[in-house]
Amino acid sequence: MECVFCKIVKGELPSRKVYESENVVAFHDIQPQAPVHIVIIPKKHIPTMNDVGAEDDAVVAEIFAAARQIAAEQGIDASGYRLINNCNADGGQVVYHLHIHLLGGRKLGALVADSAS
Amino acid sequence: MECVFCKIVKGELPSRKVYESENVVAFHDIQPQAPVHIVIIPKKHIPTMNDVGAEDDAVVAEIFAAARQIAAEQGIDASGYRLINNCNADGGQVVYHLHIHLLGGRKLGALVADSAS
Repeated sequence: MECVFCKIVKGELPSRKVYESENVVAFHDIQPQAPVHIVIIPKKHIPTMNDVGAEDDAVVAEIFAAARQIAAEQGIDASGYRLINNCNADGGQVVYHLHIHLLGGRKLGALVADSAS
Repeated sequence: MECVFCKIVKGELPSRKVYESENVVAFHDIQPQAPVHIVIIPKKHIPTMNDVGAEDDAVVAEIFAAARQIAAEQGIDASGYRLINNCNADGGQVVYHLHIHLLGGRKLGALVADSAS
């Protein structure tokens, strides 16, 4: 079965896009964990952070430039936000197409859910 | 008072460094939230993700290249890890010098601590 994020890139699955360029797309998460929860991905199918190569440096930089722009557009740049990449099983990665979560719109809790502090 | 991460960069505060290049340093977090918890920073004082400019694209890319290299060196690339940037108050930012947390060595919990899922 084809990657769901590749299907979103191709428009074969619907998404609420907030950003699109030649190499990067961002859309609202369908199961938001915060008032603002957007997923930012490269259009290129890169399975995990481990698979990012030196040839992808520009797209990595653009993903974070997009995050900054989207945070401002969503009005959460000053209040704050969290950017998260999950890699492989221990990280909690669900979709194996590189993506960065942008979460904000409320005070977020501990750095990791199950830590003491 | 000077930024504590700038002091680490200058060697004025001790740290257990795991990576250092011309523009990037990484060191063990002093209050680890997981068996592996490393902080990756640009040497340049950039207060938050909002303050990253287009001139910083190369250092952003290098931070994530360093993350991949360190994850492999720590033996958590296959098992998995999470990369987190907290921006401003809602994100839970504590030190106002841009940094990425690299967490792994165990199965990490929910994406955000206080969400339903």
